[in-house]
Amino acid sequence: MVGGLSYFQEIAKYSHLRAVAVAIHIGSQITDLKGFDAAFARLADFVKMALAAKIDLKRLDLGGGLGIPYHAETPPLPSAYATLVKQHLGEFNLPLMLEPGRLIVGNAGIMLTKVFFEKQTQHKRFVIIDAGMNDLIRPAMYGAWHEILPVTNPNPLPNLGPDPSWKNADVVGPICESSDIFAADRPLPSLASGDLLALMSAGAYGMVMGSTYNLRPLAAEVMVDGDKFALVRPRMSLEMLLSTDRLPDFLA
Amino acid sequence: MVGGLSYFQEIAKYSHLRAVAVAIHIGSQITDLKGFDAAFARLADFVKMALAAKIDLKRLDLGGGLGIPYHAETPPLPSAYATLVKQHLGEFNLPLMLEPGRLIVGNAGIMLTKVFFEKQTQHKRFVIIDAGMNDLIRPAMYGAWHEILPVTNPNPLPNLGPDPSWKNADVVGPICESSDIFAADRPLPSLASGDLLALMSAGAYGMVMGSTYNLRPLAAEVMVDGDKFALVRPRMSLEMLLSTDRLPDFLA
Repeated sequence: MVGGLSYFQEIAKYSHLRAVAVAIHIGSQITDLKGFDAAFARLADFVKMALAAKIDLKRLDLGGGLGIPYHAETPPLPSAYATLVKQHLGEFNLPLMLEPGRLIVGNAGIMLTKVFFEKQTQHKRFVIIDAGMNDLIRPAMYGAWHEILPVTNPNPLPNLGPDPSWKNADVVGPICESSDIFAADRPLPSLASGDLLALMSAGAYGMVMGSTYNLRPLAAEVMVDGDKFALVRPRMSLEMLLSTDRLPDFLA
Repeated sequence: MVGGLSYFQEIAKYSHLRAVAVAIHIGSQITDLKGFDAAFARLADFVKMALAAKIDLKRLDLGGGLGIPYHAETPPLPSAYATLVKQHLGEFNLPLMLEPGRLIVGNAGIMLTKVFFEKQTQHKRFVIIDAGMNDLIRPAMYGAWHEILPVTNPNPLPNLGPDPSWKNADVVGPICESSDIFAADRPLPSLASGDLLALMSAGAYGMVMGSTYNLRPLAAEVMVDGDKFALVRPRMSLEMLLSTDRLPDFLA
């Protein structure tokens, strides 16, 4: 903290630099207010110190970090977060900047995918889909859990979870490596080739982490607003993917 | 294996399908011949069975999988692999297809990156570079080890490993998450802003897994042949990255 204050004193030596804000960011997908409580308390101490040292703060950036429900998480409500912010930082009456990206877009996006086919081995049922880890890397990279809902034959009892008749399956992509798995042992109805599945909560760290691994062009993005929808990013063509490759003169 | 043979019998029922080959692929980065030995033995048994059943095989695809040295690995030489292939499959005199992608390109590619700056905390030295996990995801995703060599101030004693005067550092990228780390506790010389580092063995599963995460345009690719070099893929521009985004009519 004292180190932080010394930055302001250092900055004050340069006529072309002006320190106007303090920003913190303690992580992402935080589902407990305790960490925020500690961070805001330290920030408040720091702001008091800075104001006492006549540093003219114009605003505070509190970062993002408030988690969302992917599965069984029960993150605090934004209102509880706001109460905590006010309690620690309200007295300063400074404009606040917030970066709640995941909270805003995480559950606003789904990844729609088509079933290629089911494969039943002696030990396991596999559902092979046309999306791969290149389209949504969170399960492969972080072991992240995404709800998978059948679109074609949804549960006749919505909001009551999987139908008791559904059987467990591993949901996997078409990429040539064992990391290309979206879910293990998930209850799903019997699925036919072409049936649609929705991978839920794919709005954050989904498309923005997408790659063209295995020479797979990026998926299309569609924005939906009630009964309106529009293509906001067309599916990448193979031509576009390869369009900037060049043959060197010495090989031509 | 019998199941495999039954596929040929099934295929034989359809006049528009012809079975011409058997393909196996047992994994990647395999540094021991034992697995290949077992796989080729099973393949040989299968081919014998298929030939006895009058199935007209035209070729065998043996997949890839022979590992490369990233660090301390001592993979078998291609000649030892070839001897094993001949021993198990030579008698069939069938054309072979091989997919040794990693072996061919893995150590043919490096990722060149510039040092932003060093940061010394109370406990650790960090070297922050301008490449991120979006450019080479193997360390973040698989915990993969890539050799990191200073280009600007190479070891005065090449091939003898790090200079004894070098101090350990974590080499990290500029992306906003803790996964964005390329190496922990690596001996490196003192580095200044702008110094170049080479991340070695980046030719396989490097650029092809690259993403534009954090709105970072893809890196340029340069092909080098002796003293000749050519840009084979120009650096992606921010304009190109955003070029296909569209505003929906209902928001315009």
